[in-house]
Amino acid sequence: MRRQPQIEKKRLWSTLETHSKIGATPEGGLCREALTEADREGRDLFALWCRDAGMDVRVDALGNMFALRSGTDDSLPPVGMGSHLDTQPSGGRFDGVLGVLGGLEVVRALNDADLVTRRPIVLINWTNEEGSRFVPSMIGSGVYAGLFDAGTMLAQQDSEGVRLEDALEAIGYAGTEPVGSPKLHAFIELHIEQGPILEQRGMDVGVVIASQGMSWNEVTIIGRTAHAGTTPMKLRLDPMMAASRLIVRAFERAHHTSAACTTIGSIRTTPASHSTVPKTVTFLLDVRHPEDEVLEELLHAFDNDADQERSRGFSVDRGEFGGAAGKPFDPTCVNNIRAAVTEAGYSHCDIISGAGHDAVYVNGVCPTGMIFVPCKGGVSHHPSESITAEQAFKGADVLLRTMLRLAS
Amino acid sequence: MRRQPQIEKKRLWSTLETHSKIGATPEGGLCREALTEADREGRDLFALWCRDAGMDVRVDALGNMFALRSGTDDSLPPVGMGSHLDTQPSGGRFDGVLGVLGGLEVVRALNDADLVTRRPIVLINWTNEEGSRFVPSMIGSGVYAGLFDAGTMLAQQDSEGVRLEDALEAIGYAGTEPVGSPKLHAFIELHIEQGPILEQRGMDVGVVIASQGMSWNEVTIIGRTAHAGTTPMKLRLDPMMAASRLIVRAFERAHHTSAACTTIGSIRTTPASHSTVPKTVTFLLDVRHPEDEVLEELLHAFDNDADQERSRGFSVDRGEFGGAAGKPFDPTCVNNIRAAVTEAGYSHCDIISGAGHDAVYVNGVCPTGMIFVPCKGGVSHHPSESITAEQAFKGADVLLRTMLRLAS
Repeated sequence: MRRQPQIEKKRLWSTLETHSKIGATPEGGLCREALTEADREGRDLFALWCRDAGMDVRVDALGNMFALRSGTDDSLPPVGMGSHLDTQPSGGRFDGVLGVLGGLEVVRALNDADLVTRRPIVLINWTNEEGSRFVPSMIGSGVYAGLFDAGTMLAQQDSEGVRLEDALEAIGYAGTEPVGSPKLHAFIELHIEQGPILEQRGMDVGVVIASQGMSWNEVTIIGRTAHAGTTPMKLRLDPMMAASRLIVRAFERAHHTSAACTTIGSIRTTPASHSTVPKTVTFLLDVRHPEDEVLEELLHAFDNDADQERSRGFSVDRGEFGGAAGKPFDPTCVNNIRAAVTEAGYSHCDIISGAGHDAVYVNGVCPTGMIFVPCKGGVSHHPSESITAEQAFKGADVLLRTMLRLAS
Repeated sequence: MRRQPQIEKKRLWSTLETHSKIGATPEGGLCREALTEADREGRDLFALWCRDAGMDVRVDALGNMFALRSGTDDSLPPVGMGSHLDTQPSGGRFDGVLGVLGGLEVVRALNDADLVTRRPIVLINWTNEEGSRFVPSMIGSGVYAGLFDAGTMLAQQDSEGVRLEDALEAIGYAGTEPVGSPKLHAFIELHIEQGPILEQRGMDVGVVIASQGMSWNEVTIIGRTAHAGTTPMKLRLDPMMAASRLIVRAFERAHHTSAACTTIGSIRTTPASHSTVPKTVTFLLDVRHPEDEVLEELLHAFDNDADQERSRGFSVDRGEFGGAAGKPFDPTCVNNIRAAVTEAGYSHCDIISGAGHDAVYVNGVCPTGMIFVPCKGGVSHHPSESITAEQAFKGADVLLRTMLRLAS
């Protein structure tokens, strides 16, 4: 009887350490934006390691990388795993990377155990997840899942006018595989939580049961500009007053609505002078909730508050510029992940993904699940983003056990 | 017996109209920033008109223009009147200009009546009141009053690196008169209100009894950045929450404190992304009140609120970057203005100057008073800034009657 495959903690950690030298910043993080030279180096090393592990590496027209490990029946659709190797310009060492190199460790563990699954396995590196160089986020998985048009995305330009298509060509990752293939039996993404819940609750692993609904809005309030020293308060129509009231109310509502997240990440006045009551205040309102009905209620309540400001004479406009409906992950995938964690004996809880991920898009075209591990202080997109070797190990272990269940 | 001098409404209005062709903008306003070619043209025409009216025009080292009309006893210090001819880049046609050309009309009226006052009269155009081209505001009157150092001000540069000294030279207004002379017996500035109080109360004239205290602050709140989708509300240290609470409280306090003015003219977050809880929020807090003790109380109450935010874990810093203590105008000047308005039979009320003016600085070195006339909707620093010929007439008439009292 073959021995049970085992994640090698030291090998996994050393693989993460070695790979993190590519695009390393003095602050201890990574700057490896999509399709830059650093991204090319990161891809090349990953491809080399995959081939060393006996996998066949294919690249599609969007630069998505698929490393295939044969099963005993290669006529069956493969089980996918993976994430992304690109980072924010001032990113950390684990966001995305853990899911890709954790998947590599899964394959190495299978090789060591000389175990061939029934279904083939495919390890995926999705292109441009971060969206910092090319807008929008998750271009590779979005095109794969049919949410974005390939031609449109290939024509996207970075801030210097470089087209995504040309950037792919320049680093040698304009592949020939048709986009959308291979079709997957299932897809599992291991990722750091990017939030503080697991750490706060002392959990080893989060079983991600759904992605939450998101609504991104630009709110514009128009009042009447005036001289800051000569216009009595009661004669002002100061949009900053309306904005501060609306914002305080929006925060209070989020605090009193379980699982709601409301963020005002950006705000500006026009004009912007200390001695002038502004004419206009514009802010970005990001509202998220696992239940779409509750998300709708939160937005509706904001609009009611806006009506009150309108009755005071302000013009208030809320324009939604992005977001997504909430969506549960596939019950079979979720149950397999939960069984894997239980089998391993790790502490765990269900969790909802607050951020966007490649798995959120892939979830539209095949059964999909996600595994979260805690990260220090919930911090990500920052050089101080950090996990321990033990946390990485447990995440990869759950991924391995889940893949064994799905690929058998 | 000589006839009583009379302001000629049509002549005053036509003078204002003619002069407003210099630096006129398509929107109906003026762009005549300090020491530009347009300012030179405006000064040249003013000087020409002054000489036509029999006055001797002198220019000091800061470019301040003094047009002298002899009295019967020229050994006495002259009574001053005037304001400024420079405008904001997108300014209106009356802010400053009314006080200078209204003063010219006063001299013309005295000439028509063949009336020579006992004291000489000097009509003044102060340099760079607006502060839009050269920082700070009110450079000419500030140096005259000994508040600013002449050398430092002459070395101030505009946004293109041009020194004030060189700009004066370039337009031919680097004068030879020593700064600070002539010493004045008194100084009266006629100005538009730049606020809505007189219009709202249906008053012809405002008798300005004081300039209010002002405190300009930059408030910086530091919290903890986090992912907008993954960090539960109760685990956030979102500086936007602290800022919105502080701002709402500051506005409420101003609303409940008679005569207080509180303005948040500018606010920004760092980082500024819809999907990120900012680390830092910075805003400008402008607080004004006629009584310095009340102004101090308002700032103290803000600091108490800030302490509350500090106890929640935020860092809050309030740095004062400018302002001035409140100061009453000279009782003799104020009483003479009030007597002049009463004599003319115009509706009037006492008013406090909310903005800075040349008279506020001159008030530090000689008995000073100000006359306000209403402007449409309280709007200034804008092409739509507007007064009627009747309002201009009444303002100049009060100035004439006040000058007759002070110069007799």
